[in-house]
Amino acid sequence: MAYDNNNVFARILRGELPCQRLYEDEHTLAFLDIMPQSEGHTLVLPKEPAEFITEMSDASLEATMLTTRKLARAVQTVTGAPGLLLSQFNGAAAGQTVPHVHFHIIPRFPDQRLKSHGREKAEPAELAALAERIIAELAKSA
Amino acid sequence: MAYDNNNVFARILRGELPCQRLYEDEHTLAFLDIMPQSEGHTLVLPKEPAEFITEMSDASLEATMLTTRKLARAVQTVTGAPGLLLSQFNGAAAGQTVPHVHFHIIPRFPDQRLKSHGREKAEPAELAALAERIIAELAKSA
Repeated sequence: MAYDNNNVFARILRGELPCQRLYEDEHTLAFLDIMPQSEGHTLVLPKEPAEFITEMSDASLEATMLTTRKLARAVQTVTGAPGLLLSQFNGAAAGQTVPHVHFHIIPRFPDQRLKSHGREKAEPAELAALAERIIAELAKSA
Repeated sequence: MAYDNNNVFARILRGELPCQRLYEDEHTLAFLDIMPQSEGHTLVLPKEPAEFITEMSDASLEATMLTTRKLARAVQTVTGAPGLLLSQFNGAAAGQTVPHVHFHIIPRFPDQRLKSHGREKAEPAELAALAERIIAELAKSA
């Protein structure tokens, strides 16, 4: 399918929409999900315009996973979560809602019930405070 | 936590236990899950001994994702699934049951209900037939 240049993540990547940014480099961008399933729920995107993982180039995929690992470490340290769920949905049948590849990093705690995705917005001030802590943690490991 | 050399995936990697192998290279191994949540449910492992994604080396992580993309394409073609779910669990709190990093590739269809993981074994003959088809598809794209 042709890539939709006006999907919400394409617009965030172009700076047309805001995000609670955690990290950015040549190939990737990471920010907090504004409707987190768990505190610290992070999204990692390639800048490459691709809807599915099957369409990604080698360089983009490799960079996206190095960023995902980097963010996974920082999010886990900051949230203290003993578990981390990584997921990536390809196609509406798999639950993909935005047609630009993105990896979810979701902190998990024992017996914790995840919130439904896309139901409840986090408080902007809380997200901003959390983002600051994650960014500070990333700076330590840089 | 120290890596457990006797976990079931370590034993499969050493050839001490069988698997329905789909693909293998210097850094990675892919095989069919014997208790699939959906037909074509595939596991991709690094050979590097690591329990969590946060512990993986750059080379191992990059190779694992290139293998995951390769298998995702072949599994999608063979199963005809419009969707693919990719997931990776870190820690028991996130649902990890085998302490060796592995990525799940799970074909998804509209309105399909996934089977619970680890409940029901697939017929070995059916798995073997499916593996043959995926291996043939991989050979086409090689």
